[in-house]
Amino acid sequence: MNAEIIAVGSELLLGQITNTNARYISSQLAELGINVFYHTVVGDNADRLKQAIELAESRADLIVFSGGLGPTKDDLTKETIARHLGTDLVMDQTALVSIEAFFQRFNRPMTENNKKQALVLDGCEVLANHNGMAPGMFYSHENHVYILLPGPPKEMEPMFQFEAKPVLAKWLNQGEVILSHVLRFYGIGEAELETKIMDLLEAQTNPTIAPLASDGEVTLRITAKTSTEADALRMIQETERLLLSRVGDYLYGYNDDSLASSAAKLLMELDLTIAAAESLTAGLFQSELAAIPGVSKTLIGGIVTYTADSKVVQLGVDRKLIDQFGVVSEECATAMAKRVKIMFGSNIGVALTGAAGPGGHDNQSAGSVWIAIVLPDNRVVTHQLHLSGMRNTNRLRAVKRTMHSLIQLLSLKN
Amino acid sequence: MNAEIIAVGSELLLGQITNTNARYISSQLAELGINVFYHTVVGDNADRLKQAIELAESRADLIVFSGGLGPTKDDLTKETIARHLGTDLVMDQTALVSIEAFFQRFNRPMTENNKKQALVLDGCEVLANHNGMAPGMFYSHENHVYILLPGPPKEMEPMFQFEAKPVLAKWLNQGEVILSHVLRFYGIGEAELETKIMDLLEAQTNPTIAPLASDGEVTLRITAKTSTEADALRMIQETERLLLSRVGDYLYGYNDDSLASSAAKLLMELDLTIAAAESLTAGLFQSELAAIPGVSKTLIGGIVTYTADSKVVQLGVDRKLIDQFGVVSEECATAMAKRVKIMFGSNIGVALTGAAGPGGHDNQSAGSVWIAIVLPDNRVVTHQLHLSGMRNTNRLRAVKRTMHSLIQLLSLKN
Repeated sequence: MNAEIIAVGSELLLGQITNTNARYISSQLAELGINVFYHTVVGDNADRLKQAIELAESRADLIVFSGGLGPTKDDLTKETIARHLGTDLVMDQTALVSIEAFFQRFNRPMTENNKKQALVLDGCEVLANHNGMAPGMFYSHENHVYILLPGPPKEMEPMFQFEAKPVLAKWLNQGEVILSHVLRFYGIGEAELETKIMDLLEAQTNPTIAPLASDGEVTLRITAKTSTEADALRMIQETERLLLSRVGDYLYGYNDDSLASSAAKLLMELDLTIAAAESLTAGLFQSELAAIPGVSKTLIGGIVTYTADSKVVQLGVDRKLIDQFGVVSEECATAMAKRVKIMFGSNIGVALTGAAGPGGHDNQSAGSVWIAIVLPDNRVVTHQLHLSGMRNTNRLRAVKRTMHSLIQLLSLKN
Repeated sequence: MNAEIIAVGSELLLGQITNTNARYISSQLAELGINVFYHTVVGDNADRLKQAIELAESRADLIVFSGGLGPTKDDLTKETIARHLGTDLVMDQTALVSIEAFFQRFNRPMTENNKKQALVLDGCEVLANHNGMAPGMFYSHENHVYILLPGPPKEMEPMFQFEAKPVLAKWLNQGEVILSHVLRFYGIGEAELETKIMDLLEAQTNPTIAPLASDGEVTLRITAKTSTEADALRMIQETERLLLSRVGDYLYGYNDDSLASSAAKLLMELDLTIAAAESLTAGLFQSELAAIPGVSKTLIGGIVTYTADSKVVQLGVDRKLIDQFGVVSEECATAMAKRVKIMFGSNIGVALTGAAGPGGHDNQSAGSVWIAIVLPDNRVVTHQLHLSGMRNTNRLRAVKRTMHSLIQLLSLKN
């Protein structure tokens, strides 16, 4: 079964927002074993939307739309589909009640144009919207299935996951199993990794192996297609074993893992607490850890010392040390990590200091960063980075390198 | 002139990465007055890529490709275009030298497959890659222009901006001027805002007015099309004046402004320093401020107190106050903001405490948040939020509300 994803919205074509929906829907369809061959984005224009629908019908069985279900004049997705298929739009009373309740809950006046959101394709299965107003639709017509979803990701994502996906799974003829498994690597470039596994890439048929590089990380996606889940899992495991015998040194996680979630998981497993002193990253390291549910077991807190003075006055770094070595130095990073560990009484202390850019800082060029980690036994590990990105890429890269160092140090203890 | 943007990469169709390139390229083309009618994403498959090219040629004058220029076996964009147009690929010596230098700079071995990156379409204008290896191409052939760009955004964006855009601007017949201007609003819903300006939306022809909602914010994009820049500016100003007479109370910024950049700008203009004590947001407020260049003038630093203990021990909040009111309370937020202001000697102290979710925290339900801001005259302003999103949406929304409150409080002082 093939699918095409059509995102509707002139704001996408004007470059005002990013089409994150196509990514989310694609990953969900991949889990159901549905091949996606095209993403299309089209503006709030009925003629061009109709052309996009016709084209999609010629090359896909399932068409998933996002956007254009809202209350405003330029929301015209369901109207265009209804006209194209010769189907009526009817008022869905459940959706209407839920829209009225939405306004009551947030204590806002409900304007008349909001009612239009409760209109649905006659004969469709209505998909409830628990995070917004416009309902979604699952509509089977002749040889095609049409799924209509709202544009805002916080409405679309749970609606797909909990409303559309079960309906779609039931509707699918579940003969074939396709399973994917992602291996995540850090500290090796894409071409270098590919060279090390070139013979495996060249010989691949089933499972397939797909390399991908993004923002300092490389992943390998193994995909097996067969008749039972047990067989697919066995095929994936064999391929994984082969790959890891070549490049296992660089593996840090699987599937949805991130450097932050892997570091947090290890900290929680080892029952270790952590505190951080941040300068150039200004809270980003701690905030990335805090994005992981349950992290309050391990993250006590920390301090952001953005100025040289605050490193001395609030954190207690020796001013003479800063005068001698500067704030972007191994000595300063080490002192910051030691101080924050003592101050917060944590098992591990982490410090990041550097020049994020665009300009240099304290006689150090942009992208120059020192990281220090003080372990439970007070051993100190430091790293110096020379980053070449833009300000916020450099800040994020410094956080990633710190997470990876933690993963390496804590994995050894396991 | 019409353009279509084609992103090439199976990782996009599998949902492994988001197509941020289409957004970037669209916004850049909009500045040049080029209409984008479609975005297409196609996988690493020569047949389907060829079909996408043919379709794009039938409906666009300019086709911009991103991705598929790398060293690996599944990178086949330029090969497919060359075959389709009957053009040869030739080795570009400048690009080859630059690729070799790239490996020397990072002290990594250069594998043979990297040389393929220096192959370009015969007769194209080569676009230098200053942030990676694969060069881009600008190629005019019969009635179409083809621009080929690398996939990684950190390579693609500067290449488009500094290499492709000047060549494209020169190539364009610059008769018509299209200017856009974005007004940014916070604290009003999309439908409510649209109702207040419905007559203007219905009467719009030139300039056009396009509303857009995203993540708690609403924008209006005004676009004027005329023969001179002065005329376009005048038309935009007139429309802006009309719009602001209706909904000006909710305006916080323009164009690329964000709540964080607007707050940072006001703080810098007023020469005020700020420090923050963060619980649920765990450094995100400070990190968002630190994303703005030059912010070290105003951001001294702050403290992340993720646990109740750290609020008492490191920040100095009275334990009795926490026992009586809990950590998610107006009293606790206020005490945190007052303490961090004193601790860091800043003009303004900010505190955020709450339950991010998924579970509740300290007897408060998920999404319950208290924000406190202590002003230079020690006046305290507090806000209670009841957020309904997921964990990290709630953390971001709490930060946005805090930034907006700062903007309102500091604008009054201007």
